[in-house]
Amino acid sequence: MATPETSKSRRAALRYELLTLGDELLLGLTANGHLTWIGAELGRRGVQLARNVTISDEAPAIAAQFRESWAQADVLITTGGLGPTCDDRTREVLAAALGQPLVFDPAIERAINDRFAKFGRVPTANNLKQAYKFERGEVLPNANGTAPGLWVEQDGKVLIMLPGPPNEMRPMFTEQVVPRLTQMGLLAESEAYIQIRTAGVGESALETKFQPLFDRLPGISIAFCAHLGQVDCRISSPDGQYAMDILRSLADDCAALLGDDFVGFGHDSMVKVVADGLRAQNRTLAVAESCTGGLLANSFTDVCGASKFFQGGIVSYSNDSKMLLLDCPECLLSQHGAVSEECAVAMATGVAEQLGADYGVAITGFAGPTGGVGENPVGTIYIGLHTPGGCWAKKLNYPGPRCAVKERAVTAAIDWLRREVFKEARKAALPLAN
Amino acid sequence: MATPETSKSRRAALRYELLTLGDELLLGLTANGHLTWIGAELGRRGVQLARNVTISDEAPAIAAQFRESWAQADVLITTGGLGPTCDDRTREVLAAALGQPLVFDPAIERAINDRFAKFGRVPTANNLKQAYKFERGEVLPNANGTAPGLWVEQDGKVLIMLPGPPNEMRPMFTEQVVPRLTQMGLLAESEAYIQIRTAGVGESALETKFQPLFDRLPGISIAFCAHLGQVDCRISSPDGQYAMDILRSLADDCAALLGDDFVGFGHDSMVKVVADGLRAQNRTLAVAESCTGGLLANSFTDVCGASKFFQGGIVSYSNDSKMLLLDCPECLLSQHGAVSEECAVAMATGVAEQLGADYGVAITGFAGPTGGVGENPVGTIYIGLHTPGGCWAKKLNYPGPRCAVKERAVTAAIDWLRREVFKEARKAALPLAN
Repeated sequence: MATPETSKSRRAALRYELLTLGDELLLGLTANGHLTWIGAELGRRGVQLARNVTISDEAPAIAAQFRESWAQADVLITTGGLGPTCDDRTREVLAAALGQPLVFDPAIERAINDRFAKFGRVPTANNLKQAYKFERGEVLPNANGTAPGLWVEQDGKVLIMLPGPPNEMRPMFTEQVVPRLTQMGLLAESEAYIQIRTAGVGESALETKFQPLFDRLPGISIAFCAHLGQVDCRISSPDGQYAMDILRSLADDCAALLGDDFVGFGHDSMVKVVADGLRAQNRTLAVAESCTGGLLANSFTDVCGASKFFQGGIVSYSNDSKMLLLDCPECLLSQHGAVSEECAVAMATGVAEQLGADYGVAITGFAGPTGGVGENPVGTIYIGLHTPGGCWAKKLNYPGPRCAVKERAVTAAIDWLRREVFKEARKAALPLAN
Repeated sequence: MATPETSKSRRAALRYELLTLGDELLLGLTANGHLTWIGAELGRRGVQLARNVTISDEAPAIAAQFRESWAQADVLITTGGLGPTCDDRTREVLAAALGQPLVFDPAIERAINDRFAKFGRVPTANNLKQAYKFERGEVLPNANGTAPGLWVEQDGKVLIMLPGPPNEMRPMFTEQVVPRLTQMGLLAESEAYIQIRTAGVGESALETKFQPLFDRLPGISIAFCAHLGQVDCRISSPDGQYAMDILRSLADDCAALLGDDFVGFGHDSMVKVVADGLRAQNRTLAVAESCTGGLLANSFTDVCGASKFFQGGIVSYSNDSKMLLLDCPECLLSQHGAVSEECAVAMATGVAEQLGADYGVAITGFAGPTGGVGENPVGTIYIGLHTPGGCWAKKLNYPGPRCAVKERAVTAAIDWLRREVFKEARKAALPLAN
């Protein structure tokens, strides 16, 4: 077993596998969110999963896959199949495969009884199935459900069995699994990379721009990830050649080079960055949207504490509603149409004025699959922006299906707002020139 | 190789595997949507994937996993790694593993050149990597991108290589892969099950309710799937014992037994069902929401052609906006608070009147993680419903994180609207009693 002194290179050679169990995943009834979440959490600590295997709940399938994965992996994580019903077989099948008896643990039984008592219920015999642990294994208590996680070290490897419900699995992983693996030297002790979030620059243009800076530190590791008009760049030094403060200084230089295209360091979403900017300046926001139909408002209200800056939103799907709720003039709509720069500006100003907000953002367009005409084919989007410093509109076009167009339009609108909010902030910080 | 006469039982024994390639999946940068989508599409045709394996783009990892999967599978589907760049290695690695040379196909080259010409661009040398096919294999033309799919039959098995971008992979799968597999008898010729969508009844209560009906057809296969307050029930006869019209008649009996808890047959979402109901009756809808912040409006505007019935939505996140945009009386807000039955009713009526809509739906509550007080802890939701027949509110409470509470609240609101819309429709169809 590795010690806390495990070097970065030893860690990079460790093979982590994730085994996700459940017919519902294979039938496409549930998305495999565990892969996405656990993969990202391990990535932050310097480990890339070597493999994720999704199989059914059947005992022979679990046994065969476990044997194959256990032979290769150093750390094997499973999710699902620890519940009380007859199709929860992970515990029993893996114990048999490892030649370990399951032993009854009165402490787990007490925890299950306490949890049921809290909700005024009595556990059934089924539930006590969850009170068994591996004879030579440990228990990961579950504060959010009845099935505890199980931890087994055997054959110089680690097996970690986690419950399937995300609200039980995630805190268990963060609060118990990550500290244990870190303690054993199997995960980096802190974030393994610095992430630079950018917007408005393509992946290859970004690489070209950064390359002279990267050239100063030969052997540095760089990874780009593009998503919906944004590109993240991760800087790391997997062999430990460069200390964290050297990487941080490089990241600062990259950020300075980017100017307004720099969104932030770390993992905050763009909408979180804008929200923080608005809150810091005591500014408020209102939004008006037609083709994005509520997705823009929903992005802002997904931020905790949105009521501090978000005044409200109007989904004006019809011309009538644009006139009624946003004071868009009828003559403007009939002359320029609802999908136009003029209408986008009128909507942005209208919603800011109606709701007394400092900033107003509007989106109008044709998200598809029908509706485009002439100069404004399907995928045409106009964004309107009303700020304390003025009001503008811009035209964009995105290919792809309806949902993709909506998402791209919302991202573009949030990005434009971000640039203006931080421009205003910089202005406000300047001394007045007399 | 199987023939079109392949029996259901032979088909059930076929092993389908899906191999999804890409570091971005393992690092959690992208969700594994291909598993969800392909798993569901195969499920509709009577096949459950035996396994999904996600691995990195590295050639040794691809080669090792391919050999292992190919030894077991009857049909192996891969996604990703067919692009023009140096980390697209699927084609080369699998050809080597199968001992097949790659041969240049001038027809693919022409298709690539035509596609580039359409966008006024010239392909680079890299792109011509995509013009190679397996010597003893076929090409699946790609109408939406440059990388064609590849089809290989060897060792009594089928290998299907599909491009990674969903907008290229999905139409290729639906239009080319499914018909070919069906023709070979490897997929059912029509939907393999009848799906009954229900709302408002728990999974075990539903099973208890249906059981007497199921008992009439011994050996019938039943599967339940619960998601966000809805439960789907799938009825099938995997061994072909019962013909489709017998299953359909059973499903009709189940629907009749459910009454208003029956949402529909098939795969239409609940919001689509409500939208169709509103359109059929020429009724219009407006929504007002605070804690769900635009998610309710967005659900309706995700339906194509929403402008036919959706008048608009108001996201009234502050008390001011509830008064300004929804005519909620100030005294009501100060007496009962914004999270109350009274406010929900005022919001529903207010938005319907403001936008001249027949139906108004409102949601107000505490989505968390903070904000709950006393009788209204975090997770408390009030739904208001304004209909041509009256106006009501109801109180609900959902546990879980903010996003889950928002989704559950939106589903509950749409379900209540659905029940009222179809109640009105039945009333309208009744002859007047004089």
